[in-house]
Amino acid sequence: MTKKKIGILGASGYTGAELVRLLLRHPKVELVLLTADRRAGQAMGDVFPQFAPYELPQLVAIDSVDWAALQLDLVFCALPHATTQVVLKDLLAKAPDTKVVDLSADFRLDDAAAYAKWYGHEHQALELQKEAVYGLVEVYRRDIKKARLVANPGCYTSCAQLPLVPLLKAKAIEPDEIVIDAKSGMTGAGRAAKEAMLFSEVSEGFNAYGVGHHRHMAELDQEFSKAAGKPVVVSFTPHLLPINRGILSTIYVRGRRGKTAQELHAILVETYAKEPFVHVLPFGQTPHTRHVRGSNMTMIGVAADRIEGRAIIVSVLDNLTKGASGQAVQNMNLMLGFAESTGIDQPAMFP
Amino acid sequence: MTKKKIGILGASGYTGAELVRLLLRHPKVELVLLTADRRAGQAMGDVFPQFAPYELPQLVAIDSVDWAALQLDLVFCALPHATTQVVLKDLLAKAPDTKVVDLSADFRLDDAAAYAKWYGHEHQALELQKEAVYGLVEVYRRDIKKARLVANPGCYTSCAQLPLVPLLKAKAIEPDEIVIDAKSGMTGAGRAAKEAMLFSEVSEGFNAYGVGHHRHMAELDQEFSKAAGKPVVVSFTPHLLPINRGILSTIYVRGRRGKTAQELHAILVETYAKEPFVHVLPFGQTPHTRHVRGSNMTMIGVAADRIEGRAIIVSVLDNLTKGASGQAVQNMNLMLGFAESTGIDQPAMFP
Amino acid sequence: MTKKKIGILGASGYTGAELVRLLLRHPKVELVLLTADRRAGQAMGDVFPQFAPYELPQLVAIDSVDWAALQLDLVFCALPHATTQVVLKDLLAKAPDTKVVDLSADFRLDDAAAYAKWYGHEHQALELQKEAVYGLVEVYRRDIKKARLVANPGCYTSCAQLPLVPLLKAKAIEPDEIVIDAKSGMTGAGRAAKEAMLFSEVSEGFNAYGVGHHRHMAELDQEFSKAAGKPVVVSFTPHLLPINRGILSTIYVRGRRGKTAQELHAILVETYAKEPFVHVLPFGQTPHTRHVRGSNMTMIGVAADRIEGRAIIVSVLDNLTKGASGQAVQNMNLMLGFAESTGIDQPAMFP
Amino acid sequence: MTKKKIGILGASGYTGAELVRLLLRHPKVELVLLTADRRAGQAMGDVFPQFAPYELPQLVAIDSVDWAALQLDLVFCALPHATTQVVLKDLLAKAPDTKVVDLSADFRLDDAAAYAKWYGHEHQALELQKEAVYGLVEVYRRDIKKARLVANPGCYTSCAQLPLVPLLKAKAIEPDEIVIDAKSGMTGAGRAAKEAMLFSEVSEGFNAYGVGHHRHMAELDQEFSKAAGKPVVVSFTPHLLPINRGILSTIYVRGRRGKTAQELHAILVETYAKEPFVHVLPFGQTPHTRHVRGSNMTMIGVAADRIEGRAIIVSVLDNLTKGASGQAVQNMNLMLGFAESTGIDQPAMFP
Repeated sequence: MTKKKIGILGASGYTGAELVRLLLRHPKVELVLLTADRRAGQAMGDVFPQFAPYELPQLVAIDSVDWAALQLDLVFCALPHATTQVVLKDLLAKAPDTKVVDLSADFRLDDAAAYAKWYGHEHQALELQKEAVYGLVEVYRRDIKKARLVANPGCYTSCAQLPLVPLLKAKAIEPDEIVIDAKSGMTGAGRAAKEAMLFSEVSEGFNAYGVGHHRHMAELDQEFSKAAGKPVVVSFTPHLLPINRGILSTIYVRGRRGKTAQELHAILVETYAKEPFVHVLPFGQTPHTRHVRGSNMTMIGVAADRIEGRAIIVSVLDNLTKGASGQAVQNMNLMLGFAESTGIDQPAMFP
Repeated sequence: MTKKKIGILGASGYTGAELVRLLLRHPKVELVLLTADRRAGQAMGDVFPQFAPYELPQLVAIDSVDWAALQLDLVFCALPHATTQVVLKDLLAKAPDTKVVDLSADFRLDDAAAYAKWYGHEHQALELQKEAVYGLVEVYRRDIKKARLVANPGCYTSCAQLPLVPLLKAKAIEPDEIVIDAKSGMTGAGRAAKEAMLFSEVSEGFNAYGVGHHRHMAELDQEFSKAAGKPVVVSFTPHLLPINRGILSTIYVRGRRGKTAQELHAILVETYAKEPFVHVLPFGQTPHTRHVRGSNMTMIGVAADRIEGRAIIVSVLDNLTKGASGQAVQNMNLMLGFAESTGIDQPAMFP
Repeated sequence: MTKKKIGILGASGYTGAELVRLLLRHPKVELVLLTADRRAGQAMGDVFPQFAPYELPQLVAIDSVDWAALQLDLVFCALPHATTQVVLKDLLAKAPDTKVVDLSADFRLDDAAAYAKWYGHEHQALELQKEAVYGLVEVYRRDIKKARLVANPGCYTSCAQLPLVPLLKAKAIEPDEIVIDAKSGMTGAGRAAKEAMLFSEVSEGFNAYGVGHHRHMAELDQEFSKAAGKPVVVSFTPHLLPINRGILSTIYVRGRRGKTAQELHAILVETYAKEPFVHVLPFGQTPHTRHVRGSNMTMIGVAADRIEGRAIIVSVLDNLTKGASGQAVQNMNLMLGFAESTGIDQPAMFP
Repeated sequence: MTKKKIGILGASGYTGAELVRLLLRHPKVELVLLTADRRAGQAMGDVFPQFAPYELPQLVAIDSVDWAALQLDLVFCALPHATTQVVLKDLLAKAPDTKVVDLSADFRLDDAAAYAKWYGHEHQALELQKEAVYGLVEVYRRDIKKARLVANPGCYTSCAQLPLVPLLKAKAIEPDEIVIDAKSGMTGAGRAAKEAMLFSEVSEGFNAYGVGHHRHMAELDQEFSKAAGKPVVVSFTPHLLPINRGILSTIYVRGRRGKTAQELHAILVETYAKEPFVHVLPFGQTPHTRHVRGSNMTMIGVAADRIEGRAIIVSVLDNLTKGASGQAVQNMNLMLGFAESTGIDQPAMFP
């Protein structure tokens, strides 16, 4: 079988590097295009020296790519939001058969008004937004298989949706009393050089940020409201951990109509019984970020709160893998007709 | 002025070391006794090499101490719970004029039944328990000045009480909807050699523990109920951070009778206007653990949640300083009649 | 093709876990035996929760294993030294067709007297020691292919041998002026619960240990002397880094008979031109541990010292992968006739 | 006594913050000027939130300062090199009675040609350079007391000079066979936002840099040559540790004329017997960076190498304290006639 031809737009960031790490061992695809505007002309091994021993295409600028000629089977887009919609509009106009998994936030929101409110400008590719499928495989698998453009979900939101969407769908929890206290490793903040992200500013410390307002909320609102069948607004606070990889969400919920923590646990166990990338722990146990590091696995634990009727849910994933690039490859596998776990089935690296 | 004679029981643990660090520069006291049963006969510099350049008494076993002869002015007790009550009963019988700041949990709970429930055995020094004053200076300053035995509060509980007690006293928040999501540095777990505390098990990771049940809850229940004038039970989840020092509590509350987040903030600003060791940030800002590292300062921030009527409070302290040994020295200063900030006024060490 | 049946003795340590991580995705083998005496009866997922989602044999005690009945194709032995020689003597007596890759130090030293000197007791399986092949693939590939018992090299020593053995063989450096300053991540110290290895003792700090004497020296002396054809004794100082994985050796050498740093570099480039797991950087560049994290790659850099005639060589590997379990799988691949890179060709995980 | 009036030029960097931390508790000085050009108009607490609870002068731009009017007793200059010489030339012209401790490299080199070679341009204040005294107190204490302008030494170089200068002066080691393998915490690299200094680039990793050439070498050459009475050139390799504070130098030397490691140790013990900020460990022991964290202490250990006639010396200091700002305050104390340890006698903070 000839391998499928794949491109990565924005290969010099962390999600780009994670895509390369995963795809280098994927048996059914071939990396034929890597773009990185500021590093165009360099080797991938100059930007990420771990790839120096491997054969990879040289980095090029996006403007220099001839989409029609390249005839890529699929493109991963790991560009900043806003830029993304402009680039993809052009790409899909010129190469309409190329499929796209977009890792930015640009195509995640169905509602153009919500987009404009949270991102401060009108969307530039509304017709594509209508076509886009939200790429949380465990929820939208069927649609993803048929999609041309998939909007890969955010890392924080994936970590919160995987435990909460089934409970909201089952109407098993009160939608108005959800508190999500989320903690993320630093790679979630990207590779841009900012003072607040320096080693000496981050290590040996911890802080919340965006308290009371954070762009990920729009995505949570949309998906939770869909699941609940009514508007849901949650309390959500993100924090920065002095680690590279990993998100842990501690979620406080109240069971509806007497639903106990055990019953909530049972719903999740059943929902995810056959999912390759969601593992529900035995009741009362909660997961560590380190046990999913570098893997595409999500782990979820449920425990009873000592306050009657309340439960505490803890979910973890690796923000670069299941929270971004691993999830993106999972989407690609579905879109190109591969077995869903191909190339992303490695166990976590601990220690 | 002759310096006061001070002893530290349990000097080979982290809170013991932190006491030595602070007291070595305290101008009004002299360390004359350091105990450490397993390290008896060694120098403090063998157990904590940072003290090798300083003159300090040799470590001795507790059993070898003649309390009556020593006539210590004050003893810091940094022993494990249960052991503590036996040792202090003996000490105070033999040297009734010696004052004690106890850093264990043994004398924090007023209620013997609560103690027995959470610690699994009857208290062995109930008459001392009655005498003990709870040592959160900002709440009990007046009583502490006259106390012989002060029960130094827990680190998690101090971090939660400093923001919440004034709000509960003012009946400004709903006491039944409090969620405390707490994250602590590793020194809070002590110096015992356990697999789960190894560097390779902890670094580059994050996890919750004791979900739904944790001994600190008894102390929280007691003090919050006192403040509110009615029973208060909160949701509380502790987590372990891959850092040495620092606790951050993210606290989700609902204002009572229309109290806004700004009004909650105003109550805290007013309460702590003159306190040397509590700093309330401008409304909307939240603190980092690194900005209190090694200092006795607590920092508190208040922000509005996007859900109307709800607020998010973030408080931080250094678990070894304001959360343990710094707070203990603050208590000592009051008990011995020194200025409250003596020896504990150094700014945080960041970076 | 039926998969080869593999056992891991000592699966509850870090090298055991790394073997499981690598072998779970190896297409030609099947894990049929995992031993862990203190954890016998537990699931591997209890000991290392990252493996909970995978099917693996339950942990058993070594004494309960019937070697003759099991007919394993190959066993990885990750037991403590001294224990190892007793266990393997028994195993190979009962199942002489089983092949063994031993990760301990027990079979690395040819010279029984050297073993007794450095390890403080007589060797208990001298006849096996004679049979054992030293398992540094890049040096002994031919012998390893035919071996029944391979002594997997130490992590520090692999990191030093890969750059130095070719230079000593080529008589290109002075053998009497070699200084090796080595720094290792904490997983090299194993999983035993010791105070000195606690997170709070290790993080935010750095130290040398075993200064002037360290057991790895015996292995270095043996292999360097073989390579040079005369006794070689080097200065070697190990240090502990506050990281999980990675060894970096900074090596100070003087060229012989006018050999320049560039010439030393050229020798290494040529030696390793076709090796899959040794990458020599362009002259003047030096590698980071993070660029080999989790991979089986070794990276080597050579730079000129400003002192004429001297060169500085920096080599890195992941102590758990190329320094232990990855190297062991590389040996297994040769011993069982697989392609050498099978199952160990994943790129490093950075960040 | 009225307090001395002190200014800090460049207060928004890490050495500036460390000066503020130390001077806030110094009983004999008052901070009356803090400059930070890019942050002019802000409070120090905006730039370093740990100082928000303290009263400090607002940050101002250097150009806005009227040196003649201010009549500062002493200025700490923590500006980038090259800028420094221009600023100080102006300052000392307008306020010739103000004393200066300069933390940059600008006045450390006696030789204008060496300066031009290593820094790539002619020195702009040669007459001041002639006046400057090199500020390593343990070596130049007498001159420093009388100096107007002191060039505070570099962090790497202090860590290497304190053990080596006495041995070179005593002609106890071969000056041509010195290898210094130095490892530094990240704060040594400053607070500028650079990709290579991001948390995700630094944590969980380790690397050498500037191999074979590094500006600190000029300073080492100068001071070692003075000590030895002849030109000395050493091998020196700096590395970056994933920690905030701390330098550890592992130094390989050969004793001259049969001098043993014990004899080298004895020379250091005698040299530093009365020094408050240098602690020589018992023979064979070596220090950890964590045991000097946040203190002005240097610790030195000496062990015998197994190669006859060779010794391994390990020295540690905190790069921000004894390696920069603590050393600067020590200089100030001498220059203003205070007791040398005033304000810098706190023990290290470990854990």
